[in-house]
Amino acid sequence: MSSDLETDKARDVAAIERLKDQAAREAVRYIEDGMVVGLGTGSTARFMIQALGERVRDEGLRVWGLPTSEASTMQAREVGIPLTNFAAHPELDIAIDGADEVLNGTLFLVKGLGGALLREKIVASAAKRFVVIVDESKLVDHLGTKAPIPVEVVSWGWERAVHLLNKTGSIGCKPRMHRDGTLFVTDNGNMIIDCHYPSIEDPHALSEAIYDIVGVVDHGMFLNLTSEVLVAGHGGVRRMVP
Amino acid sequence: MSSDLETDKARDVAAIERLKDQAAREAVRYIEDGMVVGLGTGSTARFMIQALGERVRDEGLRVWGLPTSEASTMQAREVGIPLTNFAAHPELDIAIDGADEVLNGTLFLVKGLGGALLREKIVASAAKRFVVIVDESKLVDHLGTKAPIPVEVVSWGWERAVHLLNKTGSIGCKPRMHRDGTLFVTDNGNMIIDCHYPSIEDPHALSEAIYDIVGVVDHGMFLNLTSEVLVAGHGGVRRMVP
Repeated sequence: MSSDLETDKARDVAAIERLKDQAAREAVRYIEDGMVVGLGTGSTARFMIQALGERVRDEGLRVWGLPTSEASTMQAREVGIPLTNFAAHPELDIAIDGADEVLNGTLFLVKGLGGALLREKIVASAAKRFVVIVDESKLVDHLGTKAPIPVEVVSWGWERAVHLLNKTGSIGCKPRMHRDGTLFVTDNGNMIIDCHYPSIEDPHALSEAIYDIVGVVDHGMFLNLTSEVLVAGHGGVRRMVP
Repeated sequence: MSSDLETDKARDVAAIERLKDQAAREAVRYIEDGMVVGLGTGSTARFMIQALGERVRDEGLRVWGLPTSEASTMQAREVGIPLTNFAAHPELDIAIDGADEVLNGTLFLVKGLGGALLREKIVASAAKRFVVIVDESKLVDHLGTKAPIPVEVVSWGWERAVHLLNKTGSIGCKPRMHRDGTLFVTDNGNMIIDCHYPSIEDPHALSEAIYDIVGVVDHGMFLNLTSEVLVAGHGGVRRMVP
């Protein structure tokens, strides 16, 4: 009985992996010769970097990648994508990344479960076109449903930030910890405060309230950055546009 | 001739020091028994911490200080001010700090020449009453006249931030360096970009434009935080209120 359940679960995971790959390959078709491409981070972005590497190798596509994490930098190097940086290319043609949640009927996202929200947002905001790739399990009717909203804050005075975040309608804001009980620190040396909300009715108002807190560096809601979302489901890849 | 000039200069410096001390002592009179007090940083704040220490010693005033820098922490300990933090006291009764510039006719400030703008802004924003103490040489007709506007940005992708800061009307944005040519890094591990403006007509609009840049942590304009400014001049201490 238990082993049947495990087989079912493995089958589900494999099915979701296939959907992520489908969305990723569709997005990589948008990339043209000579483009500067922001490379996201996470399990869906991995498929995208893999597929882009195949186009570089098989078609001789010439691109420059600007990765959002050490993991994506390493993978891009492995698959043969030449890398660049903002000093050489302050404007990107396209950026492609996954998301933790996409709000149904909008292009609003939550990102940052992996702790790289700030680099991901810098790259998304630097791109002329920001394409989000998800499997259909990421669609939600309210942001903050599947995961808390991550807020990156400077470490100094973080208790003050939590004090104020608790007044934004949150039912609980806590510093992110590692499993071993030590404090999670971002690549930028900051802390992540994970804030749970019962329901976010007005993401823009919440975003403003969070930004008003001195010491907040950024949060995981991406509200006006996305050009389109590619959603892979069992019926194929659906394209959500504004 | 040269030595006469030097004597004059030393006399001016001593006169300005006396003005700073006057403004500081006036502000310290506002502090009441039991208050939690944000302690600023800089040459004028030093006089304030000194004067507060004297009240603690001479009158037995009971206060808790929350300092904005290591330097102020050390000085407060030396003069016998008991210290606290945001975990114990997330709300402060009063904060007192200097400023690099005060815009005539307003309570708008520029701070951050010393690189501690973020801690200073966190403490100012956490206080019910934020009192600024300056000598009259700090009054200006346009912000950004005496010094550039400092902008604290995360190090990753700073070239992108400079690219965008240059589009905010600045005539030049440069990373702050130490005299030995190494990069200045804030207490929070970030960089300071010093932005020169020919004239800032609308500080609120500029503030919004800078905050819109992903990767900006904060800037040195304090626009809606100040309760009053105490300006020491040769005619005494003048009080600027909204």
